[in-house]
Amino acid sequence: MKGKFYGIGVGPGDPELLTLKAHRILNEVDIICVPKSKMERDSVALNIIKSLLNTEKTIVELHMPMIRDTEVLEQEWQKGAATVASYLNKGQDVAFITIGDAMLYSTYSYLMARVKDIDPEFEIITIPGVTSFAASAAALNVPLAEGEERLAIVPSIEDPQRLPEVLTQFPNVVLMKVTPHFNEIVDILEQHNLKEKAVLISRCSTEAQLCERNLDNLKGTTPDYLSLILIKQQGEWLK
Amino acid sequence: MKGKFYGIGVGPGDPELLTLKAHRILNEVDIICVPKSKMERDSVALNIIKSLLNTEKTIVELHMPMIRDTEVLEQEWQKGAATVASYLNKGQDVAFITIGDAMLYSTYSYLMARVKDIDPEFEIITIPGVTSFAASAAALNVPLAEGEERLAIVPSIEDPQRLPEVLTQFPNVVLMKVTPHFNEIVDILEQHNLKEKAVLISRCSTEAQLCERNLDNLKGTTPDYLSLILIKQQGEWLK
Repeated sequence: MKGKFYGIGVGPGDPELLTLKAHRILNEVDIICVPKSKMERDSVALNIIKSLLNTEKTIVELHMPMIRDTEVLEQEWQKGAATVASYLNKGQDVAFITIGDAMLYSTYSYLMARVKDIDPEFEIITIPGVTSFAASAAALNVPLAEGEERLAIVPSIEDPQRLPEVLTQFPNVVLMKVTPHFNEIVDILEQHNLKEKAVLISRCSTEAQLCERNLDNLKGTTPDYLSLILIKQQGEWLK
Repeated sequence: MKGKFYGIGVGPGDPELLTLKAHRILNEVDIICVPKSKMERDSVALNIIKSLLNTEKTIVELHMPMIRDTEVLEQEWQKGAATVASYLNKGQDVAFITIGDAMLYSTYSYLMARVKDIDPEFEIITIPGVTSFAASAAALNVPLAEGEERLAIVPSIEDPQRLPEVLTQFPNVVLMKVTPHFNEIVDILEQHNLKEKAVLISRCSTEAQLCERNLDNLKGTTPDYLSLILIKQQGEWLK
C-alpha cells in the first residue's frame, strides 16, 4: 500500500498554534519534509514543530528557493515531488510542513500539484493552519473585518503602486511579507493619509514578535522578512 | 485579582482543528461563554469543543442574535459584556468561543470592545483559529492564492451586485455565508462565465461537509447557513 501525503500548515510561529490534528499527524508519519531556502538557514516551519515531536523522525529538506525564475522553480518543485513520491511508493507516510496556512502563498500548493502529476492516485490530505494575519489581529485585539466589511489579502511581491485601487474597495487590507517594498508602501500610505491606520507586525506569536504602530519608526530600515502590514481604514482600532 | 478574558476561535467544525492553545485554555478557564442565536438552537461552537473538555465547566449562554437592528444588537452586546465582566471581577477566567477565527466576522470583536469599555484594565487575550475558507481550500486541495495572486474575503450580507467589481481586481474570492443571496450570486457568476470557476462548501471539516462543484445542482434551494463559495478565476483548479 502506498503512503499518504500530508500538507500541514503549522501556523504563524507559536508551537501552541498548531492544530490538534497537525500535532497528531506529525507524530504519526514516518517522514517530515521541510522547505529550505537560502533565506531560512534553519527552516522556520521545522523550528515551530521541533518541540512537539515525541519520537525521532526522518527529516528531509526540500530545496524551495525564494526566487522568481519559473524554470528553476519548476525543476526544484519536480525534484521535491519526486523525493516525496519515492517515500510514498515505499508505503511511507510523508508530511510537508509550511508556516501559516497550507493553501495560502505556500510552496506546498506547487509541490502538491506535482506530487499528483507523478501519480494521480496518491492520497493527498491537506491540514489547514492559522494564518499570520489571524494571529496578528489576535495579538493586537483588532478585528480583521466585521459586519459588511471586506478584507483584502495582498501578496508580498505585488507592485505597491497597485495598492491604492485596493484601498478604494476594501476597508481592511493585509499586505503580506512587506519587506521588499516596505519604504515605498509607507510612502503610499502617507500619500493616502493612511499611515495612522496601519500597523506592522513581524514574527507574530513568537518571542521575537514586533508590533509597530508608528511606521515612521521603521523608515529606512528593512523589517524582518516575516512581516505584514494590517490596514484598517475605518474606526479607531489601531491607535 | 481579576480574571482574564479569552476570545477563542475554535475553527471550522472538526474538533481536531482547534489549536493546542485553545484546547489548553478551554480546559483551564472557569467559565465558557457561548454565543447563542435563534438560528443555532445548539451553539455550533459549543458542539465543536464539547468532546475536548476534560472537566465539568460552567457554560454560560450569551444571546447574540443574528439581526441587523443596531440598537438591539448594542443592548445584547452590552448585556453580554456585563455578564463577562461580572465573572472577571470575581477573579474567574472566562473564555468566549466562536467558530472559525476570533477576529473575522465574529460577535467576539463586538463583545471584546464592550468588555474593554467596562474596564480598560481587564486582560483580554485573543486566540486565533483556523478559518472556514482555509479548511475549505484544504478539503478541496486547492490553493486560496499563490504567488502574485490577491485574495478577497467578502462577507455574507454584502449586496451581490457589488461582486463584479471585486472580480475585476481579485482572481480569488471567498464569499462567506452565502445563503441569503445564493441564487442571485449564481446568476451573477453565470453572467460572468464564472459558474465553472466556483464551488460551494458547507459545514467544512464536519461530517455534514458538502462540496458542490456544480452550482446548478443547488439552484432554487437554500444552502446550509454555514456555506461559502470559493471562486478561482485562474487555472483549472476547481474542475
